[in-house]
Amino acid sequence: MSKKISIAIDAMGGDNSPDKTIEAIKIFLDKNSSKDDFILNVFGKEEIISNKLKKYNIKSNLINIINSDTVVSDEETPMKAVKSSKNTSMWNAIHHQLDGKSDISISAGNTGVLLVISRMILKMMNEVSKPALAGLWPSQNGMNVVLDLGANIECNDQNLVDFAELGSALFKSLFPNENPKVALLNVGSEEIKGTEMLKTASKRLRDLSNEKNFVYNGYVEGNDIMSGKSNVIITDGFTGNVALKTAEGTAKFIIKNLKKSLTENLISKISLLFSYFSLKKFKDKLDPRKYNGAIFLGLNGPVVKSHGGIDAIGFYYSLDLCYKIIKGNLMSEIKKNLKHSRSVKE
Amino acid sequence: MSKKISIAIDAMGGDNSPDKTIEAIKIFLDKNSSKDDFILNVFGKEEIISNKLKKYNIKSNLINIINSDTVVSDEETPMKAVKSSKNTSMWNAIHHQLDGKSDISISAGNTGVLLVISRMILKMMNEVSKPALAGLWPSQNGMNVVLDLGANIECNDQNLVDFAELGSALFKSLFPNENPKVALLNVGSEEIKGTEMLKTASKRLRDLSNEKNFVYNGYVEGNDIMSGKSNVIITDGFTGNVALKTAEGTAKFIIKNLKKSLTENLISKISLLFSYFSLKKFKDKLDPRKYNGAIFLGLNGPVVKSHGGIDAIGFYYSLDLCYKIIKGNLMSEIKKNLKHSRSVKE
Repeated sequence: MSKKISIAIDAMGGDNSPDKTIEAIKIFLDKNSSKDDFILNVFGKEEIISNKLKKYNIKSNLINIINSDTVVSDEETPMKAVKSSKNTSMWNAIHHQLDGKSDISISAGNTGVLLVISRMILKMMNEVSKPALAGLWPSQNGMNVVLDLGANIECNDQNLVDFAELGSALFKSLFPNENPKVALLNVGSEEIKGTEMLKTASKRLRDLSNEKNFVYNGYVEGNDIMSGKSNVIITDGFTGNVALKTAEGTAKFIIKNLKKSLTENLISKISLLFSYFSLKKFKDKLDPRKYNGAIFLGLNGPVVKSHGGIDAIGFYYSLDLCYKIIKGNLMSEIKKNLKHSRSVKE
Repeated sequence: MSKKISIAIDAMGGDNSPDKTIEAIKIFLDKNSSKDDFILNVFGKEEIISNKLKKYNIKSNLINIINSDTVVSDEETPMKAVKSSKNTSMWNAIHHQLDGKSDISISAGNTGVLLVISRMILKMMNEVSKPALAGLWPSQNGMNVVLDLGANIECNDQNLVDFAELGSALFKSLFPNENPKVALLNVGSEEIKGTEMLKTASKRLRDLSNEKNFVYNGYVEGNDIMSGKSNVIITDGFTGNVALKTAEGTAKFIIKNLKKSLTENLISKISLLFSYFSLKKFKDKLDPRKYNGAIFLGLNGPVVKSHGGIDAIGFYYSLDLCYKIIKGNLMSEIKKNLKHSRSVKE
């Protein structure tokens, strides 16, 4: 691809922004110092952004500041924001993408507003019944893509089939050397399990299964999400949201109790000296910052939502995700998948 | 209570039975050697059971063997089993309960068959719209009750209200010194979140909330199930099943990676010597055997399903659960709750 990868960054959204977002940009530039195949379009008040770039000692001809006078507040409701958010850093970023000047947008700001604005400005793809939020989820064999994580709390079989097409395209763009293996989240792995809607979706996915687009593995239960047998997990937004947050809560609970056990007395504290590097590796692997960023799929262009409360390193991972998604030709992978799905239908 | 707590034990169900179940009985008798307020009715082939009791050196006048010639196989479908399961250890145990000779039944056998047989023999309580499977789930403050874990994959608001009545009664019977605090599992904690069905259920639970039966805390998200703010978590059987299994899968994933880290080299292995007791405590707290046993609620008598693959210690915990539930007067707590719910409705 000779055209540069162009990323629209809402520098003002989320806690501790723009310090966080600018520091994340510094990390991204440092890690990619050998490359010049990208442009970072930074949206926010020009004076503030310039000062922060100076503060973090960033000098790069790969940065392009685009002045935006205001910011979407965290308290704003989507309906109100649609009227009042024009010329905010978030709105301008998405518009930059609509105008073809950016390939992808990223924000750590107000989630509800970001979803509504993105959908309003970029519009849904004609071939898609509902857009979805996809996320990364660690597994024994690497990384899974899971969707929907909460954009649609009620779904039909067509939505789930679309999510499979979108999710496997995302997986392919992120991991070009691996093959997407799709599974439907259910309460059992036998054919007779689940709602009628799930059974219909399962039958349709089996008809679509092929080596080129994605292979369908059937149902998966909650305890097998991370087993690595499948790498694209499909579910409705209610179940996906509950599953993701339950996993987060469980991880937090375990780590908290582990920490408590390992620091409760002198002997266990001494043991920490010996296991420091091993435990650090363990902690690194589970670092939630590495999985930061939900990808809004199904619009005429991808939008990445970073956690509002995440730090600069977490935001950097989301920024890196944006770069990889575009490098991996997400939109063309999506179009290929949807074309296949339509041809099987006809 | 002068009447003895009478427990019907299907000794033949699950892996390694009856060795497992008889060994569990031995643990239970040892731990309760000072008590004589219970009777264990053991269902299985009399000769086999007698031999196993000898093998494990169990001599007790609190055991009552009831001969049952056959066993429900794990491969049997519920529909087929209904016809062919008469005189199995499972069938006889539930019938013993119907006849008023046992207060509760426990089995580690075929789940589907146990649910169908229990419902057929014991029948649903008149006041309940659907029975539910409840489980224990660790939290920062002790233990939660969560239901439904998979008996009903589609639910309406009346079902969820019933689950709240049943679940808070179970919580009260298990933890008589604590007050049940009910929450509805949802994708956000704000009033506007979730499906219309959930909003209706939430409104009804708020109307029923009181200090005597249960206090309603509103919505809870997946990451707050274990926070301890609420201790009775209500959801439909699809979401509950996915959440429980996702939590199990996450815990397994973390512990597996922790083990790998702590044994990867000599230094980390040495550290294990120092942290042995601390890690053992940590492991004990998270031991899944302690949470073994799903309680089938809403019938004219409770039935406990133990994991088929669990060992004797895990089965012992389920047996202990049976004892506590009856000691805590579960059925009268349920009736009190349902009466209250009806009076508010009228």
